[in-house]
Amino acid sequence: MPISETWLLPDGVADVLPEQAQIIEQLRREALDFLASRGYQLVYTPFIEYIESLSSLSESNQDLDLATFKVIDQLSGRLLGVRADMTPQVARIDAHVHPVQGVARYCYAGTVLHTKPQGFNTTRAPLQLGAELFGSDSIDADVEMIDVMLGLLETAGLVESAHLDLGHVGLFRSLVKQAGLSKDTESQLSDLYQRKALPELAEFTKELKFGSDFYALGRYASDLAALQANLSVNILADEAFKQAFNVLTTTQLEIQARWPKLRIGIDVVELRSYHYHTGLTYAVYAPNRAAPLALGGRYDGIGEHFGRARPATGFSCDLYALSAGQFKQIEKVVAPKGTDKALLAAIATARSQGLSVIQLLGNDDLSSVPNATHQMVLVADEWKVEKI
Amino acid sequence: MPISETWLLPDGVADVLPEQAQIIEQLRREALDFLASRGYQLVYTPFIEYIESLSSLSESNQDLDLATFKVIDQLSGRLLGVRADMTPQVARIDAHVHPVQGVARYCYAGTVLHTKPQGFNTTRAPLQLGAELFGSDSIDADVEMIDVMLGLLETAGLVESAHLDLGHVGLFRSLVKQAGLSKDTESQLSDLYQRKALPELAEFTKELKFGSDFYALGRYASDLAALQANLSVNILADEAFKQAFNVLTTTQLEIQARWPKLRIGIDVVELRSYHYHTGLTYAVYAPNRAAPLALGGRYDGIGEHFGRARPATGFSCDLYALSAGQFKQIEKVVAPKGTDKALLAAIATARSQGLSVIQLLGNDDLSSVPNATHQMVLVADEWKVEKI
Repeated sequence: MPISETWLLPDGVADVLPEQAQIIEQLRREALDFLASRGYQLVYTPFIEYIESLSSLSESNQDLDLATFKVIDQLSGRLLGVRADMTPQVARIDAHVHPVQGVARYCYAGTVLHTKPQGFNTTRAPLQLGAELFGSDSIDADVEMIDVMLGLLETAGLVESAHLDLGHVGLFRSLVKQAGLSKDTESQLSDLYQRKALPELAEFTKELKFGSDFYALGRYASDLAALQANLSVNILADEAFKQAFNVLTTTQLEIQARWPKLRIGIDVVELRSYHYHTGLTYAVYAPNRAAPLALGGRYDGIGEHFGRARPATGFSCDLYALSAGQFKQIEKVVAPKGTDKALLAAIATARSQGLSVIQLLGNDDLSSVPNATHQMVLVADEWKVEKI
Repeated sequence: MPISETWLLPDGVADVLPEQAQIIEQLRREALDFLASRGYQLVYTPFIEYIESLSSLSESNQDLDLATFKVIDQLSGRLLGVRADMTPQVARIDAHVHPVQGVARYCYAGTVLHTKPQGFNTTRAPLQLGAELFGSDSIDADVEMIDVMLGLLETAGLVESAHLDLGHVGLFRSLVKQAGLSKDTESQLSDLYQRKALPELAEFTKELKFGSDFYALGRYASDLAALQANLSVNILADEAFKQAFNVLTTTQLEIQARWPKLRIGIDVVELRSYHYHTGLTYAVYAPNRAAPLALGGRYDGIGEHFGRARPATGFSCDLYALSAGQFKQIEKVVAPKGTDKALLAAIATARSQGLSVIQLLGNDDLSSVPNATHQMVLVADEWKVEKI
């Protein structure tokens, strides 16, 4: 490769320069401190694992498997995966490494790698930050998790204009079960819902068993009262359906009570992670952004893959996306060369106050320091920091 | 793979649980804040790059190439490497992405991956933290870098019992050049020096041109005065030799002046990174640890690979190694369920004071919270935090 290309980066991969890195670093700290205050304990998960351990979610989620870079372990000859999602790793920790009784709360922050960008114009190396709650199947747990997700976005100054979307995979799943649909029909329906293709949905459900119910689910996806008025009595009487409906309405009320100004929407056919989630799902959107700022949901039974099934709910976000477009000028104080005691003391004081102070090297002068903003000057026998 | 094995991790890879993760997180923050106060600006480098970009150091350092996991880029069909060292990446940033005039200072912290452990009982995924200074070939730059390395170890409480080793690849290189040694003989000598095999060295140098000088270099490797007394006049008169000697003695004096209590040793045949470094090398050791706590050196010309050669000096360390064996109990405050205003206010206050507060979920009682250390109780109409 010629020199002119050695510094090019692959698509979907980027350097983060100081002006942006300091913003993300600050956000990372505030987010982890916030999560700690809520009782979520930090874990670091490995970058590589045996592929079988990473695939607890991918058995039912081929996307995750396809997104995972694979390498051969030179020590064992076995296949390793580079983490593409940290949730299965935290579930493994909950199940086996740190198997506490009762409710466990964990948080994490780190880079994950994807073989291909997961969306239009997105990175292949998100800085994933998230929180997971294991061991409670109560509505309280879902409410807490959404509350924590919103609180975290609030520390990033992103909650005021945001919009919360609630869904629940249990409604569609209950209908599918009662109608006894084939996998194929289920998948076609799911696709129609995602595309919000109502005319097609009307056509498709015309001759389907419980067809009017499947149509109503898409037609009134965001209006629970209208949905209830348009579903057949049999469907409404199903225990699983009733429970899912109750979780959705209760959560909406509880979150609205905690966040009175927040706009909350319902979308009962938000099935993006249908195969993975088992209950309530939640996502926060910002105006003018297609991808959610943060998203999550309930995924009970995940630990089963590791021999310890546990109820679980959690969310994650990408710190790069949260900090998108924010830059901060670096402040740099330049001090002259020398070991004069008063100068060194003044430098130490400035540094302890959080300033970034550089002493000149060799025969360098001020011009050797790129983008210097301040300098230390001797004024009336005292070293002072002055703007340049 | 049976369930009983899905949670096993590959050799040299580990989870970091909360009791240790909070220690490392704290150390990471203190280290980065310290480096910022010294003018070192944080950059995040990518986890994957085209292999040619990562190999700026590995052309002369096959070890780094062998340590790098390689995968095929599904977007370009080209070979990608997972970073095994962040230094070449920062050099690339200095050369092209953020090419400032004058002196540039960068720092970084992140996981790197190695195909095999680099030493006995070591991790394959160190949490590398380091600093690099580009654009100055002055002794001041080396002195600053060593001073910064020591200051960083001081923030981790590790400098008091530490020992600094200084070396300089220029002495051996000058002898090799003057004697006109073959690559093969150079490599055999380097190996003898590393193994501190004096009798073998005596035998090997007996019939070698400048043999007594090559022997003296190994025999008096840690004593500059004795070395000078035992080298031939021709060698001592060589410009490159004189310059290297001067850098070594000046640096030792300057560092001792800044760190009067520090034990400083010299080892002019410390050639571990001989092919990579071009001048002064430095490493800090702690008692009872074989691997250095931090190490670095001068590697001028690194940017050449990217079309912009620059003088450079820098060091790195592994945060896992620095924090080895440290654990801290997690403090957890349990509050009862409820939305009572006084209770919620008390919880908010406790959280803002840095406490980790959990509210009970569903019908849970205190037993649902593993390792709870405190609880909130109502005493005379006031919510208080009490030890359990």
